[in-house]
Amino acid sequence: MMNNPVLVEVFRGETVESRHRGAIAVVDGDGRTVFSLGDIERAVFPRSAIKSIQALPLVETGAADALGFGNVELAMACASHSGEPEHVARAAMMLERAGLDVSALECGSHWPFDQPVLIQLAKSGSEPTPLHNNCSGKHAGFLSTCVHCGLETKGYVALGSQIQEMVREAMEQVTGAPHSVDRCGTDGCSIPTYAIPLKSLASGFAKMATGNGLMPERARAARRLIDACMAEPFYVAGTNRACTVLMNMAPGRVFLKTGAEGVFCGAVPELGLGFALKCDDGATRASETMVACLLSRLFAFEPELCAKFDRYSGREMKNWNGIPYGLVAPVEALTKAEIG
Amino acid sequence: MMNNPVLVEVFRGETVESRHRGAIAVVDGDGRTVFSLGDIERAVFPRSAIKSIQALPLVETGAADALGFGNVELAMACASHSGEPEHVARAAMMLERAGLDVSALECGSHWPFDQPVLIQLAKSGSEPTPLHNNCSGKHAGFLSTCVHCGLETKGYVALGSQIQEMVREAMEQVTGAPHSVDRCGTDGCSIPTYAIPLKSLASGFAKMATGNGLMPERARAARRLIDACMAEPFYVAGTNRACTVLMNMAPGRVFLKTGAEGVFCGAVPELGLGFALKCDDGATRASETMVACLLSRLFAFEPELCAKFDRYSGREMKNWNGIPYGLVAPVEALTKAEIG
Repeated sequence: MMNNPVLVEVFRGETVESRHRGAIAVVDGDGRTVFSLGDIERAVFPRSAIKSIQALPLVETGAADALGFGNVELAMACASHSGEPEHVARAAMMLERAGLDVSALECGSHWPFDQPVLIQLAKSGSEPTPLHNNCSGKHAGFLSTCVHCGLETKGYVALGSQIQEMVREAMEQVTGAPHSVDRCGTDGCSIPTYAIPLKSLASGFAKMATGNGLMPERARAARRLIDACMAEPFYVAGTNRACTVLMNMAPGRVFLKTGAEGVFCGAVPELGLGFALKCDDGATRASETMVACLLSRLFAFEPELCAKFDRYSGREMKNWNGIPYGLVAPVEALTKAEIG
Repeated sequence: MMNNPVLVEVFRGETVESRHRGAIAVVDGDGRTVFSLGDIERAVFPRSAIKSIQALPLVETGAADALGFGNVELAMACASHSGEPEHVARAAMMLERAGLDVSALECGSHWPFDQPVLIQLAKSGSEPTPLHNNCSGKHAGFLSTCVHCGLETKGYVALGSQIQEMVREAMEQVTGAPHSVDRCGTDGCSIPTYAIPLKSLASGFAKMATGNGLMPERARAARRLIDACMAEPFYVAGTNRACTVLMNMAPGRVFLKTGAEGVFCGAVPELGLGFALKCDDGATRASETMVACLLSRLFAFEPELCAKFDRYSGREMKNWNGIPYGLVAPVEALTKAEIG
């Protein structure tokens, strides 16, 4: 197996303390790779980074329209949210529109990942419910589609269920990669997740943004979902979260979505490009640095925006006394990358 | 720079989702390397893994005896504790013995790292104090030494302060590696931390356990600290923490201590061996798997104990619904390693 390069270094003082390897693919709407680092043929689990593709049936079946879902609800269907009160309320509302409630969710519960949100919830004396699960919006979307299409809701997370087959068909068609059972795992929220080449993921997001190679109805649904996320970045993630902060830096011009274990997928519609990256070891601090630096390079022609992404990418770290002690920084292969 | 090998793989289903690289050194009391994987000459920050060496002045100056510190207090001086009520109370008591209180601590505050402990604290309506800082026992030890020796306590964390110079001397002598300012960084709790070769760390812990090459007074202090940690593993870390759990598996026979960014140092006194390891990317899940597997190999002659360590090393992972979805597992280079 090819060794992926070190893409992010973590400095303590002047010394590198830790190193993160990874791979990055940038692909255009015709499937042409315009930039890559590392092994982009290696199969990776995109995890939550492809929720917008998984939400295609929600729009394509007419369920979203029938239930009056706007940008916020569509963003929630594509989200890994922080379980803040607004997210929880909106997930509950989506279920209510579908004539369901929290008991229909099969995603399980977890405490919010974001520490301030977790502390706030614990202080309030409450316990997390499945509505707090970062995937509750996606699951509300699956359930809405089931109800709209007259499918059984119970067991909607299972491999082979009708809704998961619709989702798999969409992922296979958009990414162009076979989604085979021998590359299938179970995701955190219990739905199937398939490992496919990083390059296919980047290609899929170029198609989502450009519509190239998609049937008109699918192309419209794809663009509507991506536009919804760009219009409502808070509902895609939450306060201070990378997806939200980075989309807010270039309103309506950048779509990105993280996935567990160090993944980001996204697109820059005006450039007609999709991208996908994974940190080998699964570290979020590294994938966030990688994606912000990649966005900086994609907008190299626009120095002010570029500088905003750069500031997010190379991050100073402070200790418990607020003393800066080091830096998470992308390597030169990334900061000096010329793309396209 | 040499590429360290992949030592831990994270499986989702049958597919490897993430990979962790690292290096491991096992050294005897004469400084002879008896086992290694990866680049053991590379300088790494040991961070909290060397708290027992940093606690040598506390014992050697007579401060520990003068203040009546027993095994629990000495274990606390070597600890990265979880901030559980017992840890907080004991740190407060150590300060009280020295005639000080929480206001003397310069380590800063943080919410406990362990989620159940954090949630419990937040639910109680309390906020973390410097006593909850995982390093509060170490700092109480520094302060006790200062008071006993008539040194200024204010500024005890600073590079160049008298107590930090005493600590640096101990680290340099025990590890045999120069601790130079150009390899110095600031630790999470604000004291200096120095990057030195992994091999020197392993050698230092072989000396701590065997006393080889140490003056008699230092050898006694070293063994007393290591024995205190092995006698009171809960006070070295806390409920369900790796250091505590693994030391409890072989009572009095294994010493180990974690450090941030994927480090473990330790010793097996009966074998006269010290060890040190670091996961390149700083991941705790990987360093814990590595150290448990290493302990299994060190006790290969004792199949029952070996099996206990192995069960901790190769860990099944479950999702939010409690469904097993994968495994964190050491690679064959580790599971089949023959040491000594």
